[in-house]
Amino acid sequence: TLDNACLDHQRTLRTGIPEVIFGAGKTPEQIISIASAFLKQNTILLATRVNEEKAAIVTEALPSLTYYQEAHMLTCNEQRESPDNYRGYTAIISAGTSDIPVAEEARITLSTLGHPVKTLYDAGVAGLHRILNHSSLLSAAEVIIVAAGMEGALPSVIGGLVSRPVIAVPTSIGYGASFSGIAALLGMLNSCAPGVAVVNIDNGFGAACMAEAINRI
Amino acid sequence: TLDNACLDHQRTLRTGIPEVIFGAGKTPEQIISIASAFLKQNTILLATRVNEEKAAIVTEALPSLTYYQEAHMLTCNEQRESPDNYRGYTAIISAGTSDIPVAEEARITLSTLGHPVKTLYDAGVAGLHRILNHSSLLSAAEVIIVAAGMEGALPSVIGGLVSRPVIAVPTSIGYGASFSGIAALLGMLNSCAPGVAVVNIDNGFGAACMAEAINRI
Amino acid sequence: TLDNACLDHQRTLRTGIPEVIFGAGKTPEQIISIASAFLKQNTILLATRVNEEKAAIVTEALPSLTYYQEAHMLTCNEQRESPDNYRGYTAIISAGTSDIPVAEEARITLSTLGHPVKTLYDAGVAGLHRILNHSSLLSAAEVIIVAAGMEGALPSVIGGLVSRPVIAVPTSIGYGASFSGIAALLGMLNSCAPGVAVVNIDNGFGAACMAEAINRI
Amino acid sequence: TLDNACLDHQRTLRTGIPEVIFGAGKTPEQIISIASAFLKQNTILLATRVNEEKAAIVTEALPSLTYYQEAHMLTCNEQRESPDNYRGYTAIISAGTSDIPVAEEARITLSTLGHPVKTLYDAGVAGLHRILNHSSLLSAAEVIIVAAGMEGALPSVIGGLVSRPVIAVPTSIGYGASFSGIAALLGMLNSCAPGVAVVNIDNGFGAACMAEAINRI
Amino acid sequence: TLDNACLDHQRTLRTGIPEVIFGAGKTPEQIISIASAFLKQNTILLATRVNEEKAAIVTEALPSLTYYQEAHMLTCNEQRESPDNYRGYTAIISAGTSDIPVAEEARITLSTLGHPVKTLYDAGVAGLHRILNHSSLLSAAEVIIVAAGMEGALPSVIGGLVSRPVIAVPTSIGYGASFSGIAALLGMLNSCAPGVAVVNIDNGFGAACMAEAINRI
Amino acid sequence: TLDNACLDHQRTLRTGIPEVIFGAGKTPEQIISIASAFLKQNTILLATRVNEEKAAIVTEALPSLTYYQEAHMLTCNEQRESPDNYRGYTAIISAGTSDIPVAEEARITLSTLGHPVKTLYDAGVAGLHRILNHSSLLSAAEVIIVAAGMEGALPSVIGGLVSRPVIAVPTSIGYGASFSGIAALLGMLNSCAPGVAVVNIDNGFGAACMAEAINRI
Amino acid sequence: TLDNACLDHQRTLRTGIPEVIFGAGKTPEQIISIASAFLKQNTILLATRVNEEKAAIVTEALPSLTYYQEAHMLTCNEQRESPDNYRGYTAIISAGTSDIPVAEEARITLSTLGHPVKTLYDAGVAGLHRILNHSSLLSAAEVIIVAAGMEGALPSVIGGLVSRPVIAVPTSIGYGASFSGIAALLGMLNSCAPGVAVVNIDNGFGAACMAEAINRI
Amino acid sequence: TLDNACLDHQRTLRTGIPEVIFGAGKTPEQIISIASAFLKQNTILLATRVNEEKAAIVTEALPSLTYYQEAHMLTCNEQRESPDNYRGYTAIISAGTSDIPVAEEARITLSTLGHPVKTLYDAGVAGLHRILNHSSLLSAAEVIIVAAGMEGALPSVIGGLVSRPVIAVPTSIGYGASFSGIAALLGMLNSCAPGVAVVNIDNGFGAACMAEAINRI
Ligand SMILES: Nc1ncnc2c1ncn2[C@@H]1O[C@H](COP(=O)(O)O)[C@@H](O)[C@H]1O
Ligand SMILES: Nc1ncnc2c1ncn2[C@@H]1O[C@H](COP(=O)(O)O)[C@@H](O)[C@H]1O
Ligand SMILES: Nc1ncnc2c1ncn2[C@@H]1O[C@H](COP(=O)(O)O)[C@@H](O)[C@H]1O
Ligand SMILES: Nc1ncnc2c1ncn2[C@@H]1O[C@H](COP(=O)(O)O)[C@@H](O)[C@H]1O
Ligand SMILES: [Mg+2]
Ligand SMILES: [Mg+2]
Ligand SMILES: [Mg+2]
Ligand SMILES: [Mg+2]
Ligand SMILES: [Mg+2]
Ligand SMILES: [Mg+2]
Ligand SMILES: [Mg+2]
Ligand SMILES: [Mg+2]
Repeated sequence: TLDNACLDHQRTLRTGIPEVIFGAGKTPEQIISIASAFLKQNTILLATRVNEEKAAIVTEALPSLTYYQEAHMLTCNEQRESPDNYRGYTAIISAGTSDIPVAEEARITLSTLGHPVKTLYDAGVAGLHRILNHSSLLSAAEVIIVAAGMEGALPSVIGGLVSRPVIAVPTSIGYGASFSGIAALLGMLNSCAPGVAVVNIDNGFGAACMAEAINRI
Repeated sequence: TLDNACLDHQRTLRTGIPEVIFGAGKTPEQIISIASAFLKQNTILLATRVNEEKAAIVTEALPSLTYYQEAHMLTCNEQRESPDNYRGYTAIISAGTSDIPVAEEARITLSTLGHPVKTLYDAGVAGLHRILNHSSLLSAAEVIIVAAGMEGALPSVIGGLVSRPVIAVPTSIGYGASFSGIAALLGMLNSCAPGVAVVNIDNGFGAACMAEAINRI
Repeated sequence: TLDNACLDHQRTLRTGIPEVIFGAGKTPEQIISIASAFLKQNTILLATRVNEEKAAIVTEALPSLTYYQEAHMLTCNEQRESPDNYRGYTAIISAGTSDIPVAEEARITLSTLGHPVKTLYDAGVAGLHRILNHSSLLSAAEVIIVAAGMEGALPSVIGGLVSRPVIAVPTSIGYGASFSGIAALLGMLNSCAPGVAVVNIDNGFGAACMAEAINRI
Repeated sequence: TLDNACLDHQRTLRTGIPEVIFGAGKTPEQIISIASAFLKQNTILLATRVNEEKAAIVTEALPSLTYYQEAHMLTCNEQRESPDNYRGYTAIISAGTSDIPVAEEARITLSTLGHPVKTLYDAGVAGLHRILNHSSLLSAAEVIIVAAGMEGALPSVIGGLVSRPVIAVPTSIGYGASFSGIAALLGMLNSCAPGVAVVNIDNGFGAACMAEAINRI
Repeated sequence: TLDNACLDHQRTLRTGIPEVIFGAGKTPEQIISIASAFLKQNTILLATRVNEEKAAIVTEALPSLTYYQEAHMLTCNEQRESPDNYRGYTAIISAGTSDIPVAEEARITLSTLGHPVKTLYDAGVAGLHRILNHSSLLSAAEVIIVAAGMEGALPSVIGGLVSRPVIAVPTSIGYGASFSGIAALLGMLNSCAPGVAVVNIDNGFGAACMAEAINRI
Repeated sequence: TLDNACLDHQRTLRTGIPEVIFGAGKTPEQIISIASAFLKQNTILLATRVNEEKAAIVTEALPSLTYYQEAHMLTCNEQRESPDNYRGYTAIISAGTSDIPVAEEARITLSTLGHPVKTLYDAGVAGLHRILNHSSLLSAAEVIIVAAGMEGALPSVIGGLVSRPVIAVPTSIGYGASFSGIAALLGMLNSCAPGVAVVNIDNGFGAACMAEAINRI
Repeated sequence: TLDNACLDHQRTLRTGIPEVIFGAGKTPEQIISIASAFLKQNTILLATRVNEEKAAIVTEALPSLTYYQEAHMLTCNEQRESPDNYRGYTAIISAGTSDIPVAEEARITLSTLGHPVKTLYDAGVAGLHRILNHSSLLSAAEVIIVAAGMEGALPSVIGGLVSRPVIAVPTSIGYGASFSGIAALLGMLNSCAPGVAVVNIDNGFGAACMAEAINRI
Repeated sequence: TLDNACLDHQRTLRTGIPEVIFGAGKTPEQIISIASAFLKQNTILLATRVNEEKAAIVTEALPSLTYYQEAHMLTCNEQRESPDNYRGYTAIISAGTSDIPVAEEARITLSTLGHPVKTLYDAGVAGLHRILNHSSLLSAAEVIIVAAGMEGALPSVIGGLVSRPVIAVPTSIGYGASFSGIAALLGMLNSCAPGVAVVNIDNGFGAACMAEAINRI
């Protein structure tokens, strides 16, 4: 029944970002079938939330695809980094080491589009010196993506230090009253620092799309 | 006990946006006392969530302040519109007429900072032609703020049509299962359109701060 | 202890729709035992939420049953399509490819009852042209079922375009703040378009029952 | 700022139901201004959620409007009952006396459109004989609207007795763990009877729109 | 570390009901160790929420224990049915076939204590005749336990028909907006019928304890 | 529109408890009209949740009614205490002084029906000696009603001390994370003591109905 | 009915902290009656959540009581500051000016008990220098109480800087997705800094009790 | 990508408690890599939430580590018990046997730091004598940690008996309306006993950190 599916091939023209395969509930066969349709158009291919097991089957069938294990992503037809198309670089910060996979989803999405990126991982608020020691990375960025779980306080701290837009990504890291990312999500939505906006829990991909929309010339 | 309050006078230097008075839980006397401290510095003054009754008392004591009734805001030392400081204009869209006060909070915040703004109100998804008929207003904007209550679907529709960043503001308009804006908030966080990020329910001010951070040169 | 079970064999007489086996928590043996009771009555048999593993055991024991893998359904004694019993056809729309299994649960339920159906899959709001290009499918339908996950905005958009009733089915597709379909459910309950009513999350079967109740002469 | 509002005057053409004024958050002055725009078009006027105090101001300015106190509605240019345009009548049932205002919102909406209606109020499941004694009213109806608060069980009971579509309206009647209608809403969404679909809490108006979409020829 | 555990051996003396082993999070070894301590006292032994896999290991070590598969319970030193100790019998009703395991947890608990019990399973509100046809079973009971999932409406219907106490047990049967039994729980807490009280979701054991407390002479 | 209301005059015959007027959302005029219908039948009259202001108007019109201010109840045709109809007395315990109004709603309901009652108020778990000092009141009771807000721990403590049934009534007393009684409700539903069942938040009336159903011979 | 109330006069002996009057739901008359009972014992009197209107009536009847308007508290028989009974002082920090009333509830409670206190108000994470500039106040304290609303990030930042225990008090300050303090509460419960524990939303009194228990020799 | 991780090696200096490895989402390889970095510093090593399978791999690679199976922890370089550094001992109480793993997480954390500890397990409120019989263990402690699931009432009971600080740890033990520890969490936050503060659900580690902060000289 994927035959009556309407892929949105004009999405890049309208929005600057191609349609992307959401791999979560799909079988490897479904991913192969949709990916093949994309490859025929010779456009950038991005698939998110593809676990290792599925990825092995897909890349065996479509060997031109690259798999990023930590980001759970498949890509093809990646762009080279093209600084001329962007106002600057996007800094991606993670609060803990456990938040890195979400940060990586953002990084792979951006670098596949040719968007310049710098990263700083494991720099949470329980040890403030880590973020204060890297203030130039933050202040020179055009956009800042911050992935944090548990109490999700890092975007507020960074938002109070810089004038560029902060895209906050709550992660589902934590347990108990973190409620799979709700605590971090609510914290970020209530940030008392200016210039912070929020995407869905674990949505590194969505944060990258917002950064692309902001930074693309 | 406001005597031990630490106003953050350097916030504009760090973040580009001045500290702002959150009027919701304060007495008119507290607002007057904090506003006076700001006026002494001769900087832009913004107070949000000041109802009419409080505003009457405050403006009697401090007649240099202007009150915006629909936005529930007090301002002073407004900047003139200064297009040279911005990459373009911010478009502010409201889904229904009931969402206009939130849209106005964003508009007054931006215009007080000198940020160029255009508006389109009452253009929700139940009558799609309204948004399709104004596509040039959207496509020429540098940033788009969309305020919507109830199902909060408008940011997804707009996000699918444009390449510039969309800042979605859920409003508390609705009843029953709208849960004072939760339905709209969740809808926006789950937007399947690229380039959408979200601020708190009814947070027109926060949307404006994000637009300022993005659009300011 | 299924011996003291009271199957409701008169349900078709009262409601026009037979009792249906809810397969979710049942063992294959329990399904076989209840299905056999139905087969003795020679009536339409429908079982929902039967996974592949269980279905293999059941169909081995009862080979007259058909299994629909994507819909997770078992059927027997299906009716032929009987347009004379209906005012028109039901259109089933899915927002994404991931929502197709829910749409298929509705489709198999209806076609088993002899109800005429047409489908349009993967036509979500992030690419509006997909739905606008098929407006005649919508406007000629007697009833429209719309399955959508994530922000669940498609029923509002369709409800604003047509005069026939829209049955909205939220799906559990999404992650994070989709809360397994709550975001879509709330969006649909708050639809600002007229003529939209909602069934439970992932309840393709319930949407089909409502369509049958409306469309049956 | 209502000047930039885009009223959706073509909504009746597209959907069969005119745009309606949502009075909840509006001042009397705003209602008068929008209502006047409608009156100029000489079309049916419906305003919902207008309390008595506002209604007094509005009807003084626009004396052609009628106010329905229990339904909290204002109407103008009502249609006469026109059975030829409908397949039959809609039965409106309320579970308790406290649910009557919601039922009345549905009744006034339908009768203003010319839709034939019959009512049965205060017939909840704690005294089943009340509904069983009126079974002919139910079985002869084309559509049944059921408004119920607290546990919201009445739509399930009625759905198990009839073959016509049941539109369930949860009401906010109750206290404590009724959570302003959530208990009733969830009960109705989980109805194990076939042919039940649900609208928002207290949304008598939305139930009427769905009934109109189903019953209108 | 179970060594410092304080088993509450006097609980029967104080409350009439022995301490019971909650098997859910325990290893088979822990269950064996606690059960052995009970067996040494030669008292009634009840263990709840013991899955088949664990039960196999426990009963191999302690062959005097009986395992009830559908109820997920282990028992030892069961009492014979002793009508003289009770005012009458307890009727246990289940709404669907899927709710039977919860009803069985109540039944095994009661019969192990010697409490007289009668059952009626699969008699939900979508087919009211099933409950009306067995009214004498209900009216002659001293206590009625009703297990129901999905919308949980059956206790309200029964509570409106009888004068004896109804103990309502919400079950986690359902999906989507049933939220693992919350819909049924809320429905039962909001019952508009008199003489209904509620225990935790799936808590057949707790319902039995309440019935024992009521019915024991 | 109360004219089409179906009062359930046979409820006492079926359930032992008369239909009761739920005063919360009703105007004084509506209460007077329904109460008059009851008075004509010369049966026990109970109205709950009638505030002082409404009560003044109602008792002026119907002077035979008695108003209980703390319980917010109106009664008429009260029964005398009739120990012969009951197995024993019901003990009503409140955890704090703030929970007394809910306890009083239970007491007035029971005493109006002629049910013997004893009370112990302000005996919460933070000072355990208060409950331990009154153990004979507890152990001699036939049924125990316990009203508690905040953490709602008192029913667990009492349930661990006695063998008679405990009806737990969560109250909305508390603030913050008490969530208007949810904390107490959840605590009571999860009681690890045997013989505890729960009614809705603040539902003193429902607790009394359950006690009546248990204790009535 | 306060006559059967059991005041817990031995609470100071057992717990070091006297029973305290929770004024929220009480009438002035009830407060006067309970306060008089305390005054007869000549012990410290504390009443929380007494609004100005009630306080005026109470202090007129009992002029020996002092009212603290910002803290909404009444006190009597206050202790003098007694450093010898304490290991050191408690520092009370508020994140914003709006959180001061909660901080004051803690301060008045402690100072009434004779507990040494220092305060620093309006030092939230959006302007980190404010807290970094007062690090000696923090590092010299024996206990630190931190009141914060909105995202509630301040306890995490402080917990990462000091070795003494931090008692986090979420406040209900905020709007929208702050959900009256839930966002702050969850943030604090998920703090990734060591040595942080949490009390109820707005519970300045509870924070003070915990500080007293820790700091009292 | 762990290469850019910033371990916070100065955390002990600042907070008295070393950075700890949160093992939940990490692979054994990641744990080995971070643990090795710690071992090079020769400091106390603590890793929490390491399941048996992962622990086997880690301890094979790093044989100097000790695994505590019930606590799910890995440790190295443990301190000897050092009473001179502490004001007294911490008592750790569990309500049920099922809560022991959480209590053990606290115990191992403390004993690894050299903190003196005593334990009392399985002493819940359904059998009060268990806690009353050990009152000297409680009254002689400097700090008391109480782990409880289900209704979480034990901290309130203990808080009402002692003057030392109680750290309440809700556990996820329970089912249905325990909502994985929410019921216990809310109960503890609403404790009406003085001197109780709360950490996250199942956060034995956090409770130990708070006890360390309080008790360390
Ligand atoms: N069981 C636990 N609960 C809460 N926090 C923890 C736990 N175990 C470790 N941590 C904290 O988690 C942080 C490490 O997070 P990450 O960098 O994501 O591994 C450290 O700062 C620890 O203090
Ligand atoms: N990780 C992701 N998070 C949110 N949306 C996504 C993600 N990956 C893909 N999508 C969107 O999901 C849509 C595809 O949904 P479907 O048709 O169900 O596969 C595309 O429009 C993508 O833009
Ligand atoms: N997918 C489904 N969603 C909702 N209800 C269903 C579904 N499948 C079957 N049912 C209903 O579930 C009932 C059977 O429940 P049970 O007796 O527990 O098997 C029948 O009355 C069906 O109408
Ligand atoms: N299915 C059940 N539901 C609720 N409580 C139970 C259940 N089974 C046992 N219990 C109670 O759980 C307690 C034992 O808890 P634990 O010490 O953790 O094993 C006993 O007091 C029992 O009364
Ligand atoms: Mg880290
Ligand atoms: Mg509009
Ligand atoms: Mg798609
Ligand atoms: Mg009624
Ligand atoms: Mg059934
Ligand atoms: Mg008290
Ligand atoms: Mg401030
Ligand atoms: Mg135990």
